[in-house]
Amino acid sequence: MTSPKGRAPVLIVGSMAFDDLELPTGVFKDTVGGSATYASFAASTFTEVRVVAVVGDDFPAATLSSLESRGVQINGIERASGKTFRWAGRYDKDLVGRVTLDTQLNVFADFQPKIPEAHKDSPIVLLGNIHPALQSQVLDSVRAPDLCVADTMNFWIQGEPKKLEAMLARAHVLIINDEEARELSGIHNIRKAASDIRKRGPHTLIIKRGEHGALLFDDTGIFAVPGYPLEDVVDPTGAGDSFAGGFVGYLAAHVETDFKKPSVARARLLRTAMLYGTATASRSVEGVGTSKVETLATSDVDARVTQIRALFEVPR
Amino acid sequence: MTSPKGRAPVLIVGSMAFDDLELPTGVFKDTVGGSATYASFAASTFTEVRVVAVVGDDFPAATLSSLESRGVQINGIERASGKTFRWAGRYDKDLVGRVTLDTQLNVFADFQPKIPEAHKDSPIVLLGNIHPALQSQVLDSVRAPDLCVADTMNFWIQGEPKKLEAMLARAHVLIINDEEARELSGIHNIRKAASDIRKRGPHTLIIKRGEHGALLFDDTGIFAVPGYPLEDVVDPTGAGDSFAGGFVGYLAAHVETDFKKPSVARARLLRTAMLYGTATASRSVEGVGTSKVETLATSDVDARVTQIRALFEVPR
Repeated sequence: MTSPKGRAPVLIVGSMAFDDLELPTGVFKDTVGGSATYASFAASTFTEVRVVAVVGDDFPAATLSSLESRGVQINGIERASGKTFRWAGRYDKDLVGRVTLDTQLNVFADFQPKIPEAHKDSPIVLLGNIHPALQSQVLDSVRAPDLCVADTMNFWIQGEPKKLEAMLARAHVLIINDEEARELSGIHNIRKAASDIRKRGPHTLIIKRGEHGALLFDDTGIFAVPGYPLEDVVDPTGAGDSFAGGFVGYLAAHVETDFKKPSVARARLLRTAMLYGTATASRSVEGVGTSKVETLATSDVDARVTQIRALFEVPR
Repeated sequence: MTSPKGRAPVLIVGSMAFDDLELPTGVFKDTVGGSATYASFAASTFTEVRVVAVVGDDFPAATLSSLESRGVQINGIERASGKTFRWAGRYDKDLVGRVTLDTQLNVFADFQPKIPEAHKDSPIVLLGNIHPALQSQVLDSVRAPDLCVADTMNFWIQGEPKKLEAMLARAHVLIINDEEARELSGIHNIRKAASDIRKRGPHTLIIKRGEHGALLFDDTGIFAVPGYPLEDVVDPTGAGDSFAGGFVGYLAAHVETDFKKPSVARARLLRTAMLYGTATASRSVEGVGTSKVETLATSDVDARVTQIRALFEVPR
């Protein structure tokens, strides 16, 4: 599937949703969101995306067109009879804390990801935060991807530990936050937690720390990307999904590297992709909902990567 | 005062104390601490230190000898009749949160820093976290230092805003944490808060973020140093003071740079000193009290700086 430039398609499985957002700047109802939506828009900045998700009758055709116009193949989006998954949340004034006001699974409750035949050879797969049994099912359907990147959350860590372990054994990269890493490993120290989790399957663990950036742990060591201190954060919703989308999108655009074997080239590529994921997330939070990732250009991300790199440059 | 190598002495003013520490690993009573103690041990790794503080009859001569043996001039330490300042605190299991159980100012309540005549030409001054009026008094006593680095805390921000403003107008570098930066500026966004604070005097603002490292803001931009993810944090007490001590110590060992004018050389030196401050703090927290900074060698700090630099290196 590799183009002459080394660009490969990425398969993204996750949720598509409506979010009712209470932000310090206002209330934004029926905002299109969901992990697959954010991640697909983000990844489409870099490469061809194939998305697998479910939406209800009420999901706007305009969003689907917008995805298509960015080269996202949407034939894996099932339109089910009923309402789209809906989440409502209220953010603190500081945009760090948030409370969930309401969750309505709707058509997402019975989501069974169906991978279109033509997408089963996808070399890179992003498993968004869905039931770990469904994540494993996706892996059963695709033919030996070079790189499987997975997300999860406390809900599954607590509720489905066995299913999660089975999925983890097949994932190459796991992206979670620090609290999730502590809960998954039962270890408070983040470095020891990372070693423990990496023994369960993923060769690379990425720990997101919100405004403080992210850490990557692999066989070659630890890599730290600081959060870019923005003057105006508008809406943190989907930051993690935009990070994951930017990360896999950048990787998929550079598949000239062999993901299967540990190497300096792989370590370098994963670290550079961390910078691109961080930059993509930092662009995403500059607007409400998917407004920023929907129109994101590589030049926007490149410019932010340059700003992030400058954060840890000691002038010569 | 500059030696042929460009090494200058640093004047450190602050507290010397006993700390009763309740750590997850045990209870450690009568542990020698205080901002000037930690900062002096830390800075003495790099250069000659002159310390100004007050202790009571009960302060151990062994600590004073230990300071002297590391080239710290202790003739500015006043021994007053009465008890030494005492602080008691309990740390959470995660060593991030802590509560103050008791504070007894004792002889520190009437502290009037007296700068020995021979120390009044100190080119670099570190004003530890004491009453801002006393910090200004120290600046009245010293003759035009090249670099004045100051610390403060919420207690003075709330209680002595006028006195603090007057001191800030004369400080070149301010070192505070993110909550203090927000409180001092009245601005939540850390980047806007930094701009506001830098207008009040300091050309450089350093914002400490605990385990997440630190940010530096100056005319040339923003510099971010990640916290080094340690396998075993033992005692975070004095981490901020060790950071400040390592920071000014490194600067004092490199006074070939002109601190008075903005330049690439100054920006580079301040950033490198941030790395050394972070490394010093990360060594300090590996032991209880001052045990680690008391015996710190430049090679220990160099090794940690190398590890921290590796955190943000993308292999070529």
